[in-house]
Amino acid sequence: MRQLLIIGIGAGDPDFITMQAIKALNRVDVFLIPDKGDEKQALKQLRLDICDRYVEREFSWREFCVPKRESEGDYKANVAQWHAEIAEAYERLLTEVPEDGVAGLLVWGDPSLYDSTLRIVDSLKERGRVAFEHEVIPGITAVQVLAAKHRIPLNRIGEPVLVTTGRKLAQGWPSEVETVVVMLDGELAFTKIDPTGLEIFWGAHLGTPSEVLVSGDLAAVADEIVEKRARSRAENGWVMDTYLIRRT
Amino acid sequence: MRQLLIIGIGAGDPDFITMQAIKALNRVDVFLIPDKGDEKQALKQLRLDICDRYVEREFSWREFCVPKRESEGDYKANVAQWHAEIAEAYERLLTEVPEDGVAGLLVWGDPSLYDSTLRIVDSLKERGRVAFEHEVIPGITAVQVLAAKHRIPLNRIGEPVLVTTGRKLAQGWPSEVETVVVMLDGELAFTKIDPTGLEIFWGAHLGTPSEVLVSGDLAAVADEIVEKRARSRAENGWVMDTYLIRRT
Repeated sequence: MRQLLIIGIGAGDPDFITMQAIKALNRVDVFLIPDKGDEKQALKQLRLDICDRYVEREFSWREFCVPKRESEGDYKANVAQWHAEIAEAYERLLTEVPEDGVAGLLVWGDPSLYDSTLRIVDSLKERGRVAFEHEVIPGITAVQVLAAKHRIPLNRIGEPVLVTTGRKLAQGWPSEVETVVVMLDGELAFTKIDPTGLEIFWGAHLGTPSEVLVSGDLAAVADEIVEKRARSRAENGWVMDTYLIRRT
Repeated sequence: MRQLLIIGIGAGDPDFITMQAIKALNRVDVFLIPDKGDEKQALKQLRLDICDRYVEREFSWREFCVPKRESEGDYKANVAQWHAEIAEAYERLLTEVPEDGVAGLLVWGDPSLYDSTLRIVDSLKERGRVAFEHEVIPGITAVQVLAAKHRIPLNRIGEPVLVTTGRKLAQGWPSEVETVVVMLDGELAFTKIDPTGLEIFWGAHLGTPSEVLVSGDLAAVADEIVEKRARSRAENGWVMDTYLIRRT
């Protein structure tokens, strides 16, 4: 049976890759490499660099254009439509993989956290037009890199941590938790909540040479983060940031 | 300055180790290896196996007895007392490390998630009796292995995930979240909540040859999990399990 390996390659530093991922990379005949347009060329190149660095056998790679997600209208409907279009791209590529071949998808961070690959693969299975088995290899997430670089635990002793999105946090501090980790924040949600009694540990381009870290009392450092985030985006052409906020 | 590397080695499979961790292991002169008594000998041996497998230079290791945590009385006070005792053990060992030497602590999973090492190291710094710098290397957590083995994302699209303890979940389903990940559950908290409309993805001894996975409707599989968990504990002498519960 055709195999599809969904390989978490960690967030940022190529050294975040696990031995398990390296072994998986070396089983792959064809890598499916997404092309997200000009501004993300650096990310595509980083994927290919990972293959060059760790794969010790012959392999090929096929590029596919990732459609743009509709930003107007219903968020979940747009995501579903977008996923369906990507599933079709996967389907076309997978049918070209020999029936005893192994295809590989490289996922930044971990495929289990705010990544759509597993959902798209499930919908591909449901469509049933191409037979395959799949396997998932976990990777280091930006959240873990954030905690390691700030040298903090995510949780207080015996206490929970809420992992959420900027969109959600902007609606207000969640009840019952003292610690919130935010991924996917395009809207600076940390500036939209009452900063009283909160501290933030923030990082952008974590694990890369462009890494920026800021931490402190949220009211005191929010402007510095906004400014450094904008500068980082200007310098790199894009910015990916993550942060933890907790009650002091 | 004396260095202390706190190295996440992943949860279970030695292949979960990252290249970054392997490089860090190879900088260490002295590994500080906890001894938690007879029933955890296997864990101590696994740490030493990791050193043997990945370290390509001379190194030594020093064992230290981990005191038992008081289980009667106030939980947080007991944890604080326990941490103070472990900090003293670290302190004694660190003072024996040459001032330009590198000590290493190997942490199962990731030092940032439900692990006390970073807190203990912070208290050691505050005591100020031994000078050192420290660095944190993230590792794959049991939560990530759970998700990878069940081939599920932790989060629903754009939705939050609460990472919590069995102790907390036993107090009732948290408000505002649809997905809960539970670590450190010694009391089978999943049997103490109303299972209506919930599904569970459970795993024990994740990433090891003794791995057990169960998933399904919580009401339908709760007994099976209780039974398999007990059997796994009987066969291995101990059990470490993790699970995700979400609304269907």
